[in-house]
Amino acid sequence: MPVDPQLAIDLLKELRALTADENGAQRLAWSPTWLKARAWFQQKLRSLPIEHHLDTAGNSWTALAGASPRTLILGSHLDSVPNGGWLDGALGVIAAFVVLGRIAKEFNGRPPVTIRLVDWADEEGARFGRSLFGSSAFAGTHSIDHDRGRTDAIGIRLEDALAACGVSIDSIGDAQRERDHAAAYLELHIEQGPVLEKLGLPLGVVLGTKGVERHAITFHGQEAHSGSTPMAARHDALAAAAKLALAIRPIAMQYSDAVCTMGSLKTFPGIVTAVVGRCEATLDQRDLDAGILASMYSEAQRKSHQFAEEEDCTVEWSRIWNIAPEPFHPELINLCDEAVKETVGQSHRLPSGPLHDAAEVSRSGIPTVMMFVQSLKGISHNKIEDTREDYLRLAITAFDRLASKTIEWMASHP
Amino acid sequence: MPVDPQLAIDLLKELRALTADENGAQRLAWSPTWLKARAWFQQKLRSLPIEHHLDTAGNSWTALAGASPRTLILGSHLDSVPNGGWLDGALGVIAAFVVLGRIAKEFNGRPPVTIRLVDWADEEGARFGRSLFGSSAFAGTHSIDHDRGRTDAIGIRLEDALAACGVSIDSIGDAQRERDHAAAYLELHIEQGPVLEKLGLPLGVVLGTKGVERHAITFHGQEAHSGSTPMAARHDALAAAAKLALAIRPIAMQYSDAVCTMGSLKTFPGIVTAVVGRCEATLDQRDLDAGILASMYSEAQRKSHQFAEEEDCTVEWSRIWNIAPEPFHPELINLCDEAVKETVGQSHRLPSGPLHDAAEVSRSGIPTVMMFVQSLKGISHNKIEDTREDYLRLAITAFDRLASKTIEWMASHP
Repeated sequence: MPVDPQLAIDLLKELRALTADENGAQRLAWSPTWLKARAWFQQKLRSLPIEHHLDTAGNSWTALAGASPRTLILGSHLDSVPNGGWLDGALGVIAAFVVLGRIAKEFNGRPPVTIRLVDWADEEGARFGRSLFGSSAFAGTHSIDHDRGRTDAIGIRLEDALAACGVSIDSIGDAQRERDHAAAYLELHIEQGPVLEKLGLPLGVVLGTKGVERHAITFHGQEAHSGSTPMAARHDALAAAAKLALAIRPIAMQYSDAVCTMGSLKTFPGIVTAVVGRCEATLDQRDLDAGILASMYSEAQRKSHQFAEEEDCTVEWSRIWNIAPEPFHPELINLCDEAVKETVGQSHRLPSGPLHDAAEVSRSGIPTVMMFVQSLKGISHNKIEDTREDYLRLAITAFDRLASKTIEWMASHP
Repeated sequence: MPVDPQLAIDLLKELRALTADENGAQRLAWSPTWLKARAWFQQKLRSLPIEHHLDTAGNSWTALAGASPRTLILGSHLDSVPNGGWLDGALGVIAAFVVLGRIAKEFNGRPPVTIRLVDWADEEGARFGRSLFGSSAFAGTHSIDHDRGRTDAIGIRLEDALAACGVSIDSIGDAQRERDHAAAYLELHIEQGPVLEKLGLPLGVVLGTKGVERHAITFHGQEAHSGSTPMAARHDALAAAAKLALAIRPIAMQYSDAVCTMGSLKTFPGIVTAVVGRCEATLDQRDLDAGILASMYSEAQRKSHQFAEEEDCTVEWSRIWNIAPEPFHPELINLCDEAVKETVGQSHRLPSGPLHDAAEVSRSGIPTVMMFVQSLKGISHNKIEDTREDYLRLAITAFDRLASKTIEWMASHP
């Protein structure tokens, strides 16, 4: 019994018509449009023999009870950034829905294992700056005390926005109960990067989510008159920062999938007639291997001190944020690879630079894998985010195959 | 008959007490404090057998008539930037005053040539952005039509600020009449840079003012996600700009006194999680030699295009401002060198990076030279601007010697 990929595309378009405006998707978590998307989705689920509930963190769970309580979870998130795309998150939820429907039909409503569909709450963190909100509550990596005080751009507290959606911030940790019987987690997502497009491949297998080291780096030199200060007498903070901006690239390129980015650089006083006295830069380093990430971090630090010394400046580092890499489950990676190959002939394994709910699920010890479908031009978080429709159909077919393979795998891994 | 250097220092301190607050000198041109400084100075001049008038551009002229109408002009500017130093400009005017006094006494009020003291109007351009206002009117390089529409930070028009000080903008060109009989111009100024301090020398001879090429340079790349965009797929506008920030330094260092400065660099979108899509930089290049300046400009342009290509970016240049170098008079440079050597034993010749009224006078064809006295730490346009008092005394003695030598030189160069 085949899955119906066209149904998924029709539903995604219906959701877009319901929740996007001329600037893109507007399914901001905890907003009326998000609640509308979720209510629309519940309507669709009515056709299935399912149980539904919200957990204490606002994650939406739909269960098709199986012969065994051991559970395969399929999911992603319906929420979007403001002015977002039609596929980021929604594709994974709708794909899970059509796969759930196929399984329900195939097994006459009683599959060998329990299948649950999850729509995670507030993956994007676009309003309060706390991404992976619901999945981290599920995984037990939530940070209530830190999050309680968060406010949005107009001063509304996270705590109050949750309460308006029926979620009490003090209880979100109880969402960990949803982990009972969970044996595997699968998520389909758009790549949000250019790798598959460059390779000319529709689908890829995600090896895990990269760890991130994110730092603010300030070089202190000496502001001086650009006309009267000889080149040799300068303490040029921009020169030191420029050397680092270039040096982080060979540091990353030693490793196949590592990235290092200087995304912001500010000069002070920042006027045409003065040598830069202070330069503030940001550094974002990512890799799937914790050892490589640590090496890149210490190498960038070493280089920054060398450049500061060369330019008669000083340098200070301040960590903005970091997170450990989360490699996915090796056997599920192999199953995903098989499903992709059987569907499109060729597969490619790649790490994910962006974080995903799957990383939190995996961190909690549940075997996890993700499948990526190609993004056009690598663009996401934008109304022009898109993927070829034939590739979307292939993705849903391959994801359905992966679900079947995972159900079999669960039987042989009790 | 010796000049009285201590009198000059006492007068500078008196002027500081009258026109500075806790943030520094406040003798902003066309302001009440500037008018107060000028009125105070007129009181001091009363002791001398002189004629005084303002010209049509607001320059203040004091003349000691000599046996010949041929004229030696001594001067600088009493105006300061807001929160400025006590010496920038004021030193040259007060030095000219004590030298004028010495000459008047020595020749019993009738020197062999006419001596004129000038206090130029609005050298700094701090309020309306038009520096060298009075001296450019004198030199005929003024720009009435462009300046007429200038306004200050609160919207007051330059034209109206001038009128309140008795100056009609339409008549400033008539200040060129003051050039009649002018045979030489001398100006003493603080260095405002670190060169003499590094050499351990009190005084220097200024070879001229450097020409300036000032440009805005924008690199266009492609904004991209820092996590999902592989290093090799990036169009990183910051990388191209960083290469240029470093390349302008060897370009300048090919030449002994040239400087190239990237004073401002801005990144867009300028966030930690995005590869820089657009980078805006400024470039300020200066040298005393017009050929060197032109070479540095074209070399920086060539490099910028090379770097843009290497980084899969594009680049565009836009001229902010430029001015030609102005070398001072070779024979007056030699006289200044002699005066410095006779006073302190050792001299040093250096170009001026900052512009000065002397550049405008020289551009009008009047033989001109400047003398620099060491600045502590090269700092100026700041309340901590300072110079050792023993060096100030040496500077006034040497400047007086230069005036005597120039009077003799005028006699032999009719």
